[in-house]
Amino acid sequence: MTFSTDFRTELFDLFRWRRDVRRFTDAPVDASLLDELVELSCTSPSVGYSQPARFVRVADPRRRQAVVEEFEACNALATAAYDDTRARLYANLKLEGLREAPVHLAVYADTGECRGNGLGRATMPQTLEYSVVLAIHTLWLAARAYGLGVGWVSILRPDRVAGILDVPAWWRFVAYLCVGYPVEEHLDRELVRAGWETDDQDARSIVER
Amino acid sequence: MTFSTDFRTELFDLFRWRRDVRRFTDAPVDASLLDELVELSCTSPSVGYSQPARFVRVADPRRRQAVVEEFEACNALATAAYDDTRARLYANLKLEGLREAPVHLAVYADTGECRGNGLGRATMPQTLEYSVVLAIHTLWLAARAYGLGVGWVSILRPDRVAGILDVPAWWRFVAYLCVGYPVEEHLDRELVRAGWETDDQDARSIVER
Repeated sequence: MTFSTDFRTELFDLFRWRRDVRRFTDAPVDASLLDELVELSCTSPSVGYSQPARFVRVADPRRRQAVVEEFEACNALATAAYDDTRARLYANLKLEGLREAPVHLAVYADTGECRGNGLGRATMPQTLEYSVVLAIHTLWLAARAYGLGVGWVSILRPDRVAGILDVPAWWRFVAYLCVGYPVEEHLDRELVRAGWETDDQDARSIVER
Repeated sequence: MTFSTDFRTELFDLFRWRRDVRRFTDAPVDASLLDELVELSCTSPSVGYSQPARFVRVADPRRRQAVVEEFEACNALATAAYDDTRARLYANLKLEGLREAPVHLAVYADTGECRGNGLGRATMPQTLEYSVVLAIHTLWLAARAYGLGVGWVSILRPDRVAGILDVPAWWRFVAYLCVGYPVEEHLDRELVRAGWETDDQDARSIVER
């Protein structure tokens, strides 16, 4: 199995055009498409083939509303922690699309029942959550290739989300995703964040040892 | 920017044919290709645009050897923790290609100097490491699209690796990657692990709440 230059060009475009989407249309997402995305996410690497990712579709309006309120509480705390100037900039950022997004997916690492007999994670147990993150990235890229947008909301307290969603105690919260069709295609301030970024160190270099 | 059905078919093939590679040829990897892969990894999502991934190319033969010995020590401990039957199965698995791989990349999360002013990670600081995991996945897929193999070695103690590589104290170890051209293309037991997997619960379903 080899891949062509043309494919690579399009793949790297996909990487560049994948965004964290926060503005969604009200167009519904087919359940079969969601199923396909979750199925594809299982092709991601997982430590010791543990396949720990668990996806919860949050459809109950009261639960969705409770998650929105949990975000707002955390975001108010985050705003208060910045000084005046930065707090004003922060308050102007649109950080999520929880109200608009037709689909909410909470994503967990199943620490209790996954495959693999613990292989590969004795010294680094966090690789179980890392495996879930890899699955999320696969789902995100596949979604974008279908024209779907995904936004990752991390401004939430895992214990509060667990209380809202009533999942098994041995599922560890990794991410809360908004999924839907994006309103816009262009790059905007939620990505560029002019005025928010101040430093400019280079993350791109390889250090040698 | 839209993507075609043909592109998606090839993308999903890439997902399926990406593997954790443990057998490498001795063909060298161009430094410019590595640079391109690291550059591409910066297109990955990162919490609050923190861009925390730091890549260390481990080229010094003594350091490479020290990492091999650290793996062997951890792997011996892991083998001893299984019962007889499983320990025999475990010992037969080829879990890494550290000796053969032309390139070793240690990957860290820079907890001290990254961008974004902490945005989005007050309640879930682990999203910084998650951002590095997303960068690794992008690098892995791009590498595979170029015919390169990547293998993730997690059977290492982060504090020992830090000692070997002499990186800043505020860099948190996320992964150790072997990179090179794979010896074989077919699926083999390091992926299928017949006899190692015993349970069969379904990771693919979406739970609804």
